[in-house]
Amino acid sequence: MSSSLVISCKAAVAWKAGDALVIEEVQVSPPQPLEIRLKVVCTALCRSDFSAWESQAIFPRIFGHEASGIVESVGEGVTEFKEGDHVLTVFIGECMTCRHCKSGKSNVCQVLGLERRGVMHSDQQTRFSIKGKPVYHYCAVSSFSEYTVVHSGCAVKVSPIAPLEKICLLSCGVAGGLGAAWNVADISEGSTVVIFGLGTVGLAVAHGAKLRGASRIIGVDTNPEKCEKAKAFGVTEVVNSNDCNEPIQQVIKRMTDGGADYSFECIGDTEMITTALQSCCDGWGVTVTLGVPKVKPEIATHFALFLSGRTLKGSMLGGLKPKSDLPSLVNMYINKEIMIDEFISHNLRFEEINKAFDLMREGKCLRCVIHMPK
Amino acid sequence: MSSSLVISCKAAVAWKAGDALVIEEVQVSPPQPLEIRLKVVCTALCRSDFSAWESQAIFPRIFGHEASGIVESVGEGVTEFKEGDHVLTVFIGECMTCRHCKSGKSNVCQVLGLERRGVMHSDQQTRFSIKGKPVYHYCAVSSFSEYTVVHSGCAVKVSPIAPLEKICLLSCGVAGGLGAAWNVADISEGSTVVIFGLGTVGLAVAHGAKLRGASRIIGVDTNPEKCEKAKAFGVTEVVNSNDCNEPIQQVIKRMTDGGADYSFECIGDTEMITTALQSCCDGWGVTVTLGVPKVKPEIATHFALFLSGRTLKGSMLGGLKPKSDLPSLVNMYINKEIMIDEFISHNLRFEEINKAFDLMREGKCLRCVIHMPK
Ligand SMILES: [Zn+2]
Ligand SMILES: [Zn+2]
Ligand SMILES: [Zn+2]
Ligand SMILES: [Zn+2]
Repeated sequence: MSSSLVISCKAAVAWKAGDALVIEEVQVSPPQPLEIRLKVVCTALCRSDFSAWESQAIFPRIFGHEASGIVESVGEGVTEFKEGDHVLTVFIGECMTCRHCKSGKSNVCQVLGLERRGVMHSDQQTRFSIKGKPVYHYCAVSSFSEYTVVHSGCAVKVSPIAPLEKICLLSCGVAGGLGAAWNVADISEGSTVVIFGLGTVGLAVAHGAKLRGASRIIGVDTNPEKCEKAKAFGVTEVVNSNDCNEPIQQVIKRMTDGGADYSFECIGDTEMITTALQSCCDGWGVTVTLGVPKVKPEIATHFALFLSGRTLKGSMLGGLKPKSDLPSLVNMYINKEIMIDEFISHNLRFEEINKAFDLMREGKCLRCVIHMPK
Repeated sequence: MSSSLVISCKAAVAWKAGDALVIEEVQVSPPQPLEIRLKVVCTALCRSDFSAWESQAIFPRIFGHEASGIVESVGEGVTEFKEGDHVLTVFIGECMTCRHCKSGKSNVCQVLGLERRGVMHSDQQTRFSIKGKPVYHYCAVSSFSEYTVVHSGCAVKVSPIAPLEKICLLSCGVAGGLGAAWNVADISEGSTVVIFGLGTVGLAVAHGAKLRGASRIIGVDTNPEKCEKAKAFGVTEVVNSNDCNEPIQQVIKRMTDGGADYSFECIGDTEMITTALQSCCDGWGVTVTLGVPKVKPEIATHFALFLSGRTLKGSMLGGLKPKSDLPSLVNMYINKEIMIDEFISHNLRFEEINKAFDLMREGKCLRCVIHMPK
């Protein structure tokens, strides 16, 4: 069903970098051609919402990009979705027609790639406003609102029997970690893995590594609570880098007789990417970078790390193609082949959304799932 | 046959960084346990000899590491070789027993890896002397001498029907380029390749890419003569970066509609590694670094190049395992499946060895093959 009505609803608006979100009445335009309007059911707070909220310049803005919802109405030309469909949002879309979408090797859609300016891909305008003034989007999703509009390429239809309050985590963090372990690194059975950063993404990598049969999964973090929780996700040994008297890469090299087969940087720190490279072995070591650094965007590494046979790779969303790969992950969850529930440390009401930001700042959560009003 | 005699012969000795080599009478000790002594037949000058001769501190020294020879005598415990065997030398050995040698994935032998101090792996001594004073080795090979001693793991037996004056190029440069194209990048049919640096290694990459069926092979260099010669090796388009009014990565991106599938850095310049990464495409672009930088050893790259799906890899000798892979390359040459002759721009007598250094400095050669006295 197509809709031409503006919806007024509640959204958590960020007015200024680092200021607590304010729940405001916003106007949500009807979906334009090839767009869909969703009723958001659940949304989690991801590290990149937090970083952008802390440091970016585009305001007022509605953050949130890891979400599940139900299609409320569809714009002209949308045939893939209809009212009532259950969906996950995705921050990198899949247009299905560009060279990258058609290739089996890439999820970097040339049409619906990462949107950084806070507007819709199609017309560079916002669908949110307050008293006629634009409120900007985040990553083409903006799920911290009861209703949102996304391009139909930035949503994925999923099985209606999957619990939306859980599978929202497959919209970004958990899927990204699993994809990094399976697609990007392609971890082989019996191998040794080291993971820097034991947040949701790092633990999802550990989960993926365990499912691939890795024999040792070493987790590194500075937060004792995170180290404690990590074993439930497949981490076999934890190292608190604050407790080490020597560079962590030396500790890892000694533990692993020369370096791990795979290392993952899940913190968002370019210096840690170098450390991760140094922590994997000569000859076949593969380092995967997943984090988005806030401070120093340049990676500095000695060429000899590559000469001796290392590989450095990265990806967004673990190299997963949203439309093809996320429904399969949802089905794996339904079949109890992957865990999601364990990544949810807190369930919060929409009104409590700022608590999620506090918990993330304090390092006291994995995923906080925010339940939107019914 | 085992030998206990010291051989006196001619060797081209480097006495000081950058000074012309001097042909001297040197004493070559008999091979120690697990070593072999070779009569060098032909040796080529490789860029890394040149760089080390220009800039390193270990003198007096006998350079040369790309060579063919005939076994003169063997040390205790050597069963793999006997007098008269035809061999290629290798600058990274294969002990056949360490974790890396036993793995199918690595050529970074933990016992006979790159030797940087100018001595033999087994006892950290030299086998060369002049009037009792040590003359240092280079990369465990030192082929700029009529006779040399190498660890039996640093030589590979090859078919006696292969012409030693040609196949010496498979000891380093040509093998390294082919291995980078086939093993490290694993170039697929129909793909687009860009190669920075059209010396022997870069052209060997082009040759390897062509044999894999790459549809476009773009060569980049600043030397018009090198650009001219490149088409014979499979390069389909050449770009002289001195003729470009904009950064070369922008030229490549425009030529390739967003970037090449594979890019190769064959110059030995860490800034060019960044350029190579920027010249390959989002999603699946693979950059292989083959050069050994002389100046700035740190690679500086923006993390977003990896986030959007690029991979950076490196290797020595194109990831080839010397003992397993070089004899196959020799057989491919015998069967006319790969070119070698075309990489030889000059044939020089041993007495003319300094001319090879001059030609390399002036960028006027591909490989200069130096023929040792019969
Ligand atoms: Zn996210
Ligand atoms: Zn697309
Ligand atoms: Zn060489
Ligand atoms: Zn070995």
